[in-house]
Amino acid sequence: MANKEKNGLLDEITPMDVDFAKWYTDICKKAELVEYTSVKGCMVIRPYGYAIWEHIQRLLDGYFKQTGHENVCMPMFIPESLLQKEKDHVAGFAPEVAWVTHGGSEKLEDRLCVRPTSETLFCEHYANIVHSYRDLPKLYNQWVSVVRWEKTTRPFLRSREFLWQEGHTIHESAAEAIAETEQMLNIYASFCENDLAIPVVKGKKTESDKFAGAEATYAIEALMHDGKALQAGTSHYFGDGFARAFDILYTSRENKKEYPFQTSWGVTTRLIGAIIMTHGDNKGLVLPPNVAPIQAVIVPIAQHKAGVLEKAGELAEKLRPSFRIKMDDSDNSPGWKFAEYEMKGVPVRIEIGPRDIENGVCVLVLRHNGEKRIVKTEDLETELQKALTDVNAGLYQRALENREKRTYTCLTTDEINKALEENGPGFVRALWCGDEACEDKVKELTGVGSRCMPLDEQENVEGVCVCCGKKAKHTVLWGIAY
Amino acid sequence: MANKEKNGLLDEITPMDVDFAKWYTDICKKAELVEYTSVKGCMVIRPYGYAIWEHIQRLLDGYFKQTGHENVCMPMFIPESLLQKEKDHVAGFAPEVAWVTHGGSEKLEDRLCVRPTSETLFCEHYANIVHSYRDLPKLYNQWVSVVRWEKTTRPFLRSREFLWQEGHTIHESAAEAIAETEQMLNIYASFCENDLAIPVVKGKKTESDKFAGAEATYAIEALMHDGKALQAGTSHYFGDGFARAFDILYTSRENKKEYPFQTSWGVTTRLIGAIIMTHGDNKGLVLPPNVAPIQAVIVPIAQHKAGVLEKAGELAEKLRPSFRIKMDDSDNSPGWKFAEYEMKGVPVRIEIGPRDIENGVCVLVLRHNGEKRIVKTEDLETELQKALTDVNAGLYQRALENREKRTYTCLTTDEINKALEENGPGFVRALWCGDEACEDKVKELTGVGSRCMPLDEQENVEGVCVCCGKKAKHTVLWGIAY
Repeated sequence: MANKEKNGLLDEITPMDVDFAKWYTDICKKAELVEYTSVKGCMVIRPYGYAIWEHIQRLLDGYFKQTGHENVCMPMFIPESLLQKEKDHVAGFAPEVAWVTHGGSEKLEDRLCVRPTSETLFCEHYANIVHSYRDLPKLYNQWVSVVRWEKTTRPFLRSREFLWQEGHTIHESAAEAIAETEQMLNIYASFCENDLAIPVVKGKKTESDKFAGAEATYAIEALMHDGKALQAGTSHYFGDGFARAFDILYTSRENKKEYPFQTSWGVTTRLIGAIIMTHGDNKGLVLPPNVAPIQAVIVPIAQHKAGVLEKAGELAEKLRPSFRIKMDDSDNSPGWKFAEYEMKGVPVRIEIGPRDIENGVCVLVLRHNGEKRIVKTEDLETELQKALTDVNAGLYQRALENREKRTYTCLTTDEINKALEENGPGFVRALWCGDEACEDKVKELTGVGSRCMPLDEQENVEGVCVCCGKKAKHTVLWGIAY
Repeated sequence: MANKEKNGLLDEITPMDVDFAKWYTDICKKAELVEYTSVKGCMVIRPYGYAIWEHIQRLLDGYFKQTGHENVCMPMFIPESLLQKEKDHVAGFAPEVAWVTHGGSEKLEDRLCVRPTSETLFCEHYANIVHSYRDLPKLYNQWVSVVRWEKTTRPFLRSREFLWQEGHTIHESAAEAIAETEQMLNIYASFCENDLAIPVVKGKKTESDKFAGAEATYAIEALMHDGKALQAGTSHYFGDGFARAFDILYTSRENKKEYPFQTSWGVTTRLIGAIIMTHGDNKGLVLPPNVAPIQAVIVPIAQHKAGVLEKAGELAEKLRPSFRIKMDDSDNSPGWKFAEYEMKGVPVRIEIGPRDIENGVCVLVLRHNGEKRIVKTEDLETELQKALTDVNAGLYQRALENREKRTYTCLTTDEINKALEENGPGFVRALWCGDEACEDKVKELTGVGSRCMPLDEQENVEGVCVCCGKKAKHTVLWGIAY
């Protein structure tokens, strides 16, 4: 991009407290994560945005493989007749799919939808390849894109096509399938917390909010900087409902024909939206080090002076085997470079100038809080590792504090309204009787919907429903969802 | 899969000299590379097949990144109006695309095709982001699937949806774009030769065989075991034709508005078909070590005897940091295991039994030629590395000999017919005047079409056209194409 444009960048970011939505799309555009296209509701993921996704993929794919999962690739099309086999599932998805009606000049007899999710294809495949208990479990995953015909779209958060992974597994017993559902939820949660520095709540969805065709849906919920909730990943337990609909039968250890039990689980490019809205600030993006395409940028100061570029280059070479490093020796001013890499959310900046070289030091600047550390150049590798660890911990801590500050425990809908009015949007923790009518009424009266029933708060629930006053069955986390 | 079925596997493979096409699909199915679906012309790529693709991706992606390319992701849809902007391009692709006409219940005004290739989307994007010579070059690639509505399909070789990478680059000068086209052709060729052990001929396509919209198309051509030719990768030079059609203009170093120059290049899951048909035999798949999901399988002999499983497990742990190892300690017989991993094309089998343990040795068996090597267990790492290198070299050498044996240099169409009749299908090397009518007539008279004009045989062409007898301009490699 031409310098002229780059110099104008900072002026153009809308401050997040002026207009959070505008701030968000400004970052997506100015940090060069995405670009719009003439394909309505779809986007180009640009190199810097895609590199973040590649790191997300690399890490998650490693965790999936460590737990015995294998990657496959299903067709992107689903014949309408196949989609219709599981009644709840088709009811949930048919209204929002894209239909292929013609191939070349030929009109198709059975039209094809572009997959919105692939349970039906996996079921058809399992019916073909699962015959005996010896064939179980199958622990499959695929990294693909899916299409859902959304009316209003926003980069990463909601688009007509998005990238994701979808895991689909099949097991001998219900207990094993449930354990898989929980295992994957835990993998998602620890990935978000450790690699993305995003604190999440693990919970079960209420009946009304379950995935179409699931017996139980679990999710991780995160709170964004503006107090809105974002569902960051889901894990579904299907029981044997899909197996029955698709006639998947296997011969058990007792030599009987049995239906197996299934799960599915997924995360999407939405995680990039979660990173932006959890960690970003008015200077731009702030990236957690584990998925940052550039972990540290080296900015030489007074680079025309003798020895500066050489030393900066030497440092870059020294760090490259262990870190993702960029050395910017372009003609742009240091000030321009500072702003540029702050916009791009590079976790650590390394400054080195003539005086630093004389003193055998360089300066580390932490993106998320502006902290400067003067470190001995000979200790740079250790110090950079420490700085990245500190950035990650600092990001997590700050996000956790924001969430705690914005989580309100309420006993009545009036209290909910008061809390939201006084403190702004956030998570509301309140008890619920389990009746869908009350769930709907809370939303109607307060604007917050049930996000999930936190898994670690469901035992010994004592008290009354926030809505009807009858005995409560569940602790529910309520919020305004992205 | 149940044992009963597995035991029947070998009986079910059709020998390649009885029916090569059937042999091919038997391997695809029995080695568990693919499975058919109810989506006509599309397939499931199963874990073992997908793992081969993952290794292909990993290696190529590394080569692309080493040469400065970045990954992006474009939408999977192209509006009909956008597809129509470059006239040759739309004429080439429109007849074979899948059309999305409805999103949810809404009929689309501008229908969308599912991308058959993405030049049009990249051009639209480049028009948005390329303004100055400082923005050039852009060296982009994406790993996605594309759709072409083929009438007859075969796993990996020709399917309605297939996986590929498509590189799209844009440059200041024609020379730079041409150099890029050549660089990528060379990367493909060295990948095929070094990593897949498949010898290829680098050549330029004739006018009639160019990519729709290209000024020049280059390809690598490989000869399969049955003497048919397979195009394994292509690299296109576009000149400034697409830039003109899409109004991509930038301000040059001389401060003038100029059109930039473009390229595109791609390889597909077809490479897996090339591996099967170059190296496979009547026992099944034979995989080149660099992309084999399992590089060596350890088969314990008499595994119920004391110490055998322990020793086999110890070897597996020792080898795992450097190799992709499978240890099969299942209850199946050694004979069953031998057949199973031969079918799956595992390059090296490691046998270890009680007597071997006593003698401090184990047995390496090379998949491609059955060679047995008794090696000291203490040298196993070195010996396995050596065995894998030898397998790779052996596969390449055997494929090269097959190609040489089946390459016929001919002066007339009668000679072509005679050579093909006597020796079976193969490459024909023959001179050509450059006239399309002669190209067509050779095909009509002999059945072989022009595959490419080999790059290293175009200087000082002396002689006459194989068809019309006029002065020849090019040496052409002819063949029967997959």
